[in-house]
Amino acid sequence: MSTAISLFDTTLRDGTQGEGISLSADDKLKIAKKLDTFGVHYIEGGNPGSNGKDIEFFKRAMSLNLRAKLTAFGSTRRKDSIVEQDANLNRIVESGVKAATLVGKSWDFHVHTALQTSLEENMAMIYDSIAFLKRNHLEVIFDAEHFFDGYKNNPEYALAVLKRAEEAGADWITMCDTNGGTLPTEVYDIVSSVHRELNAKLSIHTHNDCELAVANTLAAIQAGARQVQGTINGYGERCGNANLCSIIPTLQLKMGYHCIEQEQLAQLTNVARYVSEIANVHMPVNQAYVGNAAFAHKGGIHVSAILRDSRTYEHIAPELVGNKQRVLVSELAGQSNILSRAQDLGLSLDSNNPLTKEVMNRIKDLEHQGYSFEGADASLELLLREANGELKELFTLESFKMIVEKSVDRPVVSEAIVKIRIDDESVYTAAEGNGPVNALDNALRKALIQHFPSLKEMHLSDYKVRVMDDQDATAAKVRVLIESTDFNNHWNTVGVSGNVIEASWEALIDSFRYALIGQKKVANNIPSDTQRLGLVNH
Amino acid sequence: MSTAISLFDTTLRDGTQGEGISLSADDKLKIAKKLDTFGVHYIEGGNPGSNGKDIEFFKRAMSLNLRAKLTAFGSTRRKDSIVEQDANLNRIVESGVKAATLVGKSWDFHVHTALQTSLEENMAMIYDSIAFLKRNHLEVIFDAEHFFDGYKNNPEYALAVLKRAEEAGADWITMCDTNGGTLPTEVYDIVSSVHRELNAKLSIHTHNDCELAVANTLAAIQAGARQVQGTINGYGERCGNANLCSIIPTLQLKMGYHCIEQEQLAQLTNVARYVSEIANVHMPVNQAYVGNAAFAHKGGIHVSAILRDSRTYEHIAPELVGNKQRVLVSELAGQSNILSRAQDLGLSLDSNNPLTKEVMNRIKDLEHQGYSFEGADASLELLLREANGELKELFTLESFKMIVEKSVDRPVVSEAIVKIRIDDESVYTAAEGNGPVNALDNALRKALIQHFPSLKEMHLSDYKVRVMDDQDATAAKVRVLIESTDFNNHWNTVGVSGNVIEASWEALIDSFRYALIGQKKVANNIPSDTQRLGLVNH
Repeated sequence: MSTAISLFDTTLRDGTQGEGISLSADDKLKIAKKLDTFGVHYIEGGNPGSNGKDIEFFKRAMSLNLRAKLTAFGSTRRKDSIVEQDANLNRIVESGVKAATLVGKSWDFHVHTALQTSLEENMAMIYDSIAFLKRNHLEVIFDAEHFFDGYKNNPEYALAVLKRAEEAGADWITMCDTNGGTLPTEVYDIVSSVHRELNAKLSIHTHNDCELAVANTLAAIQAGARQVQGTINGYGERCGNANLCSIIPTLQLKMGYHCIEQEQLAQLTNVARYVSEIANVHMPVNQAYVGNAAFAHKGGIHVSAILRDSRTYEHIAPELVGNKQRVLVSELAGQSNILSRAQDLGLSLDSNNPLTKEVMNRIKDLEHQGYSFEGADASLELLLREANGELKELFTLESFKMIVEKSVDRPVVSEAIVKIRIDDESVYTAAEGNGPVNALDNALRKALIQHFPSLKEMHLSDYKVRVMDDQDATAAKVRVLIESTDFNNHWNTVGVSGNVIEASWEALIDSFRYALIGQKKVANNIPSDTQRLGLVNH
Repeated sequence: MSTAISLFDTTLRDGTQGEGISLSADDKLKIAKKLDTFGVHYIEGGNPGSNGKDIEFFKRAMSLNLRAKLTAFGSTRRKDSIVEQDANLNRIVESGVKAATLVGKSWDFHVHTALQTSLEENMAMIYDSIAFLKRNHLEVIFDAEHFFDGYKNNPEYALAVLKRAEEAGADWITMCDTNGGTLPTEVYDIVSSVHRELNAKLSIHTHNDCELAVANTLAAIQAGARQVQGTINGYGERCGNANLCSIIPTLQLKMGYHCIEQEQLAQLTNVARYVSEIANVHMPVNQAYVGNAAFAHKGGIHVSAILRDSRTYEHIAPELVGNKQRVLVSELAGQSNILSRAQDLGLSLDSNNPLTKEVMNRIKDLEHQGYSFEGADASLELLLREANGELKELFTLESFKMIVEKSVDRPVVSEAIVKIRIDDESVYTAAEGNGPVNALDNALRKALIQHFPSLKEMHLSDYKVRVMDDQDATAAKVRVLIESTDFNNHWNTVGVSGNVIEASWEALIDSFRYALIGQKKVANNIPSDTQRLGLVNH
């Protein structure tokens, strides 16, 4: 039996301290569900004492019935006060969570400088706060902030803080490298000392200011820690937190620890990309394990060796983490993914079908142009059904024109003129909107609704734009992802162009087309199929 | 005296194996000059045996008279051949460099699978090739490819390879973790063993496939290696090479080794950003030491502690690596963040100033509308300077009109018409673009450049769009963030509107305004102020 490591995810709390990361309550709920399926053991959702948005999140998250322990974050009581009257600690208890992370000081310099209180009062604050939460039947994870800096400065005091937390009943004691300046050998030595002195279970929380957060986490595990605190993609303040996407596979595939099931580990790449999409943060192509280039080989000698035996230039099989090998010159990857997707849809595209090669080439060509079907299931399904010859075009575009006009002191005006053909009829309409995409959406909807009244029930629920080439940014290619809903169903479509309006138009068109085939299916009452298509209840 | 570490930069060779990295001979020369001033000891320029572009580079680089040793890369002679007749090795000698890196196999599996020769012949290939280069008076760095995988599989053979290289006269012996799958403890143990067995100077070359390249490099140094091979920003195949921008400051500031002079280290951030500009690769904001967010503080509590003593949340003084502290303004923070930002700018907005309350209310109001200044330093600075009454408007908008037109079978067309007022003159221009924002950028630039020719040097380097309310997505508010650069500086601006075009327009205008006040300051030569503003040398 391999030793189990507990995974504590703080993407939703410490992760949002990262520059440019801002998550709505909806975003947080989506990520929490994903993390839960992935198999992390604790999901730190936020600080119910600091703002109303987090209280709202905890309320809604309760109804998700997660297997993971939903965890609230807060600080020890204020100095010179009574713990029962501490508003933030009461807020944690009221939030109804079963586990709480409590942060306290363990660096004497910080007690003096930041808290401006005595070393004794700091100890009392920690003891009282943990004991209070324990009396209220919560599991308590005590985060010793700046523990390593504290230990280096005053080892007796830093250790005494941890012992006090243990006496108060803390279930886990977390050693935090808050400033991210500690080296792996220091982490190993210090955690080893703590491990000899304490009985409580130990946890590690590191930051990436020296590009060492992953190594520091591994060193702590080797020294006896049994819980890892980190975030998906390493999001977090300054240089970020320890990246769970690198730590989990290394612990499990290389060091013999057990974190999650193998099938869950095979979701790693998907989880990383999903969270980056929700957070609207560009994922570096060269990110370890999960990046698009993590198993990409540029021509020449490497490629011919890879073709003989992939172990020649790959440290693990990419499938173990749900990633794939890419040979950058002639890309053959992905075929099996797409075939299995076609099978899911009940389409007869197998590798013996001559259509298969054609649709594979088409998809490869589109991906080369910048399309990405990972976040656009509905567009992929339309492509596959089209290749299978089962899609009748319900309408075609003849032209559109979009005008945005702004004069000083007058509000901006957007209007769209759309000309489409439905059967033999040409429909020519115009509409305003409070933005160009909204104007296009309105004009297109107006044209279509006369023939397809059921479209009234659908609307766009999310709209994302990503610029794909960072250089000369406004001249680069743009990918638009649109999520649509008719309340029961959600579907995602994609458009790509050098022009954000054209890319939006493409994604809009796909969204309407998908709504029409979906509604037709529901009307025809083919439940097994629609279930598989994700057209209901998803 | 602290121990000296030799720095071997391979940005121009291994770095260009990274996906999306492609450098012209001109680019390479620019980077070589920068690296030389920065103080690296070896600059590996390419493989003269593999392509003519690299031969051309070496020819031109010779005339730069670099202090660093220009180094050529190549493989050991072909199997079953005579070394004197090896075209690639002769090419290295002919290139005129004084040092060469020679890569050879040290993993028995690779000898069999990739080379398809015998273990004895591989040894002979290594011996002959090194001896040949030594006879031609070159310094030889022997790169033992896959050394760690080789050692784990067959330690006797892997060590025998290194000994053979030593016998042949190699000046440096490099242990490569080519596949990036080795852990720091393994690196430490293996390098320690090698250090006991060999007399030659040892070098370390790691890859980042487990996000451990930096830690592995440090572990090798601790075990006795005295040279580091790596790249600027960690560019390289798959997940990249060891990142010199993280390794150098950690070795020098935290571990007591000597790599370069302190004044050179203070150029680190500039070097990192310069290379990322030349390589056309966007730099992650959270990159260790040199990222724009590496010393950025968001949380309110963190900020008030930082103002008391920056060591509370900074592991080093950012100036040591040429970076700077930034206080991010966000909903999580409060008035103290904005005041400290104003102080940084030398503005007299303190809490007793009546203007302060006014500007705070203005910022709060804008944030309520959806503006976020956390990723838009330049827009915030413009607001603060405006409130302080020190901003003269250099131009004003009268109107713009933007048209996007698309007919079936014809490419989409975008054009923008812009009317602005500069002093008393009205400037009316139009331009096309390959998207609406590009068209606006082109038209505005065309109008402004006549009066402000220095704007030629700036360009947009990143463009981000975020939809802020998920409901009714295309009618929701949109936030646009634009990053601009003029090579030395980066600045970020924000625009918000229900209309993506109007939001982009706002962010564009701020970007141009900021460029103009920045350039004016540099021209007026106010070093203390511009230094603080980060407008020069950063």
